[in-house]
Amino acid sequence: MMLKTHSCGTLTKADVGQTVTLNGWVQRRRDLGGVLFIDLRDRTGIVQIVFNPDFSGDALAVADRARNEFVLAVKGSVVERDPETYNANLATGEIEIRVTEIEVMNAAKTPPFPIEDGVEVDESLRLKYRYLDLRRPEMQKTLLLRSKAAKIFRDFLDGEGFLEVETPILTKSSPEGARDYLVPSRVHEGEFFALPQSPQIFKQLLMVGGIERYYQIARCFRDEDLRADRQPEFTQVDIETSFLSQDQLLGMMEELVAKLLRETSNVELALPFQRITYADAMNKYGSDKPDLRFGLEIEDITDIVSSSDVKVFASVAASGGVVKALNAKGCASWSRKELDDLQPFAARYGGKGLAWITVKDGEWRGPIVKFLKEEEIAALTERLGVEEGDLLTFSADKPKVVADVLGNLRLKLGRDLKLIDDSVFKFAWVVDFPLLGWDEEEKRYVAEHHPFTRPNEDDLHYFDTDPGKIRAQAYDLVLNGYEVGGGSMRIYKRDVQEKMFTALGFTNELAYEKFGYLMDAFEYGTPPHGGIAFGFDRLVMLLAGRTNLRETIAFPKTASATDLLCDAPSTVELSQLEQLHIRTVLKPKPAPAAAAAAEGEK
Amino acid sequence: MMLKTHSCGTLTKADVGQTVTLNGWVQRRRDLGGVLFIDLRDRTGIVQIVFNPDFSGDALAVADRARNEFVLAVKGSVVERDPETYNANLATGEIEIRVTEIEVMNAAKTPPFPIEDGVEVDESLRLKYRYLDLRRPEMQKTLLLRSKAAKIFRDFLDGEGFLEVETPILTKSSPEGARDYLVPSRVHEGEFFALPQSPQIFKQLLMVGGIERYYQIARCFRDEDLRADRQPEFTQVDIETSFLSQDQLLGMMEELVAKLLRETSNVELALPFQRITYADAMNKYGSDKPDLRFGLEIEDITDIVSSSDVKVFASVAASGGVVKALNAKGCASWSRKELDDLQPFAARYGGKGLAWITVKDGEWRGPIVKFLKEEEIAALTERLGVEEGDLLTFSADKPKVVADVLGNLRLKLGRDLKLIDDSVFKFAWVVDFPLLGWDEEEKRYVAEHHPFTRPNEDDLHYFDTDPGKIRAQAYDLVLNGYEVGGGSMRIYKRDVQEKMFTALGFTNELAYEKFGYLMDAFEYGTPPHGGIAFGFDRLVMLLAGRTNLRETIAFPKTASATDLLCDAPSTVELSQLEQLHIRTVLKPKPAPAAAAAAEGEK
Repeated sequence: MMLKTHSCGTLTKADVGQTVTLNGWVQRRRDLGGVLFIDLRDRTGIVQIVFNPDFSGDALAVADRARNEFVLAVKGSVVERDPETYNANLATGEIEIRVTEIEVMNAAKTPPFPIEDGVEVDESLRLKYRYLDLRRPEMQKTLLLRSKAAKIFRDFLDGEGFLEVETPILTKSSPEGARDYLVPSRVHEGEFFALPQSPQIFKQLLMVGGIERYYQIARCFRDEDLRADRQPEFTQVDIETSFLSQDQLLGMMEELVAKLLRETSNVELALPFQRITYADAMNKYGSDKPDLRFGLEIEDITDIVSSSDVKVFASVAASGGVVKALNAKGCASWSRKELDDLQPFAARYGGKGLAWITVKDGEWRGPIVKFLKEEEIAALTERLGVEEGDLLTFSADKPKVVADVLGNLRLKLGRDLKLIDDSVFKFAWVVDFPLLGWDEEEKRYVAEHHPFTRPNEDDLHYFDTDPGKIRAQAYDLVLNGYEVGGGSMRIYKRDVQEKMFTALGFTNELAYEKFGYLMDAFEYGTPPHGGIAFGFDRLVMLLAGRTNLRETIAFPKTASATDLLCDAPSTVELSQLEQLHIRTVLKPKPAPAAAAAAEGEK
Repeated sequence: MMLKTHSCGTLTKADVGQTVTLNGWVQRRRDLGGVLFIDLRDRTGIVQIVFNPDFSGDALAVADRARNEFVLAVKGSVVERDPETYNANLATGEIEIRVTEIEVMNAAKTPPFPIEDGVEVDESLRLKYRYLDLRRPEMQKTLLLRSKAAKIFRDFLDGEGFLEVETPILTKSSPEGARDYLVPSRVHEGEFFALPQSPQIFKQLLMVGGIERYYQIARCFRDEDLRADRQPEFTQVDIETSFLSQDQLLGMMEELVAKLLRETSNVELALPFQRITYADAMNKYGSDKPDLRFGLEIEDITDIVSSSDVKVFASVAASGGVVKALNAKGCASWSRKELDDLQPFAARYGGKGLAWITVKDGEWRGPIVKFLKEEEIAALTERLGVEEGDLLTFSADKPKVVADVLGNLRLKLGRDLKLIDDSVFKFAWVVDFPLLGWDEEEKRYVAEHHPFTRPNEDDLHYFDTDPGKIRAQAYDLVLNGYEVGGGSMRIYKRDVQEKMFTALGFTNELAYEKFGYLMDAFEYGTPPHGGIAFGFDRLVMLLAGRTNLRETIAFPKTASATDLLCDAPSTVELSQLEQLHIRTVLKPKPAPAAAAAAEGEK
């Protein structure tokens, strides 16, 4: 076997004169008057190899039988090309290989799609033949980036004294385990393991265990209806620390992210990252993961219009809602259709409508203008920085609805008005999340993060008066409108934990039933601790400039949680189920006539 | 909160005069006439902190309430101890901290066992309170070693151009999936994922996908009856390469292991490692994972005794068996009981008996001596290097039985005679494993490694004549009698693969049914490839000088696949099972009377 001495993509003029052996795949071949040119591809890139009767002898005839994706081993000498035939598109474009020996390592059928970037191929075909899709430069680059990013995380954390500790994959179903993947036990009849939705409890136990600094690039599992950007198994960089303050932890994580961007994207981030409170993020950007690459802030104008003649403004203000405005700079020239389209846009995000005003030729125009008092116009002009050519939009509703409507309008405008610089990585921390949210259905407070999230020391008194006001020591890392990480300081004092459980409406018994062994552990000298988890798939996606998580995973699953390559999930032998003490319970299939009728209803 | 500026175990005389803040756990406390001494422990070690009315003020009273495993924050100055009170057992033994401020970060109940090494504690108690067990220096050291070993693997492989790629955990049940853990699908009624027993197929697909060099520290799962040294989930360093020869791959892995030993154990290994064929290993050491830290080789004496008057020797030789001997140097002085015990020892490994001869005062003694001819004694003397004081042992049976009996006797003698230097790490490659083994039950050849293992080129002709003789390009890495790694070059040529399937008695259809998508992949330009997997848990165990895999895993499972800490597996809500389209099928519990009767039978 002729094994490689060099890699295809790394040869340059400096190698001229050398005899090299290369192994790789045929990217394409051209026969120019009896001289055969083959682009040979390996992981590092492409090099042109030449078969000429003058120097290739029998190798020419062998090479002539090779087709795309054949695996070749060739031996030859590196020569400089005639400068007129330099190929500037190839890193190796100034040289070529004059082949003297060849071995066809393997043949290949014609692949179902071309092995190159930028070709329109149905994604399900790409996933079925993932091993061919992976040969494309774009996929190779992404997997290389992913591997490199993991290394950077590890090197940094190792340098800071973190231990990599593996936590179990076969573990216990969590208290609210509706989304757990379950694994029947062979040994323990009728019992099940669960796959972890995160290593949360284990990482806290490691802190109780005195590990002080833990990390793991951990596989996590969630059995849920999949949206475009979720996978049933996903990877997070899971981190927990003891004896650090929130500021110390966030500062350390910023250094980590800065190193990541420096070494993967050659970008120097300004530190510290902007920190924006949850309240501000919702107010100004209508989102808890704001895209801060552009301004276009939302303004609260409730105070200005609370007694307005615009009835909806006044009534919403009176009933505890908010009125907010977004100034779409320079959009006064929108067509009637564009303005009309604002209504269905608002509806998509739960709004009842969007009022608007155009400012053209010094004049305010729009359905509500005639109801505005002069002093309201003056106040709006100042608050919204109104100028000639502006389009003012208004939403009046419950705060959540207004945030959704104007937050999404802001993102749409940011894109449409090309306010976003795609080359920018704009990181920020969103902090001071609320600790508790009111669950209208259950008529009780629920933990926004989880029941072990530490409340802000300054807000502890609210436990007795207004628990909804308590801020959590919880934080998200956002990047360009995506959440790429999140975590919290954890409760470590028993009295605080009890207040928390009381606020959640748990009796001691219920709390123990749900979190027994963690509560036990907390009795034995728990250090102050807290941590964070980075969504590794999404982070890699953003670093790679991709828009789909599946592009960052070697063997992903589809939106219906199917692996098209190996055809999983699949049925199994009955004997396997018997050994696991389970059987399947399938819904009876509708009779053919009934099925057709049901089909017709769709 | 008073957060640490320094770590307990790292303070030395160089820090004298500094004011430091420490966080840690109370290891022990002593009150000497109103002066309180506390050993404060963190991950780095222990330091003595002192509370004295002269400089501690109110802190003394607070500290006085602290008990073992309380978490303290203390501030104070580093002072040198009186040289007479230097503690040579502590790295920090020349200094102590005079505490001026204290905060009790958390209280602790009395732990169920002392947090120190060398205490006799029931393992199930340690596992239930694993978070306390992890605080022991020994466990901390082992987890640190494990983390460091992972880092060394990664750094080396990264330097050699390997990409870390994550492969799916939710995958397809394998063709012989009797030991698969299954995961019911919520979306796809009646279908199941399986957890991977190894990433074998995916790593080969990555080679088809042009990744060339892949690694992953991968979690693997096997649902089997657990022996002391198995875990239902375990970790392997999984490696696959393209375009390398077996020699190149083994050479690279040796460098990796050498780096591992250098950096974890300060041991410089001699390279290359010894390579011993499977045949030699079985012949000389009776094991395919020989402990090579000592000699005591087994000798084949079939030729010498094939027409012996020792009937069992002659008859075994005539029927295709073997007669082998092990010379237990210096054991002629064994007691009658020790000699008698050889028989049950042999029986334990399937042997019918063990013949023996003592050589004392120049005389051969033992039941079979009178049947030996003079020329046999002469030949044995030479072959076995017989000297005064030796004990000769003989086993005659099928080769497999003889290997088991004498191989295990050899190990026992190695230990009993103290021939083993525990400080030595003796690595070797066992190579040239047989490709196929004859399955007496199924009356067909089965793959010894797996059906994609590449046969030795020189043996291909045996496919047509004597498939059992074909050597595989498969190899194990052994260390001190343990297998710590294993792998093979893979078949990449279609014609060889077909020969292999034919030898296994598979029709093309059956082969496709079992390995369809991998066989499809192999049609599209498969490079020559091969790999290895290291058993990470066991390797760490040996590096740490431990004898139990559970000691190397933060949260291990017991021999009955139970997690005693979080009580998994466990029963789950019926509604969870309904959503997964399964129900449990439990064996009816015997009535109390029947149960008692059954109990009586045991």
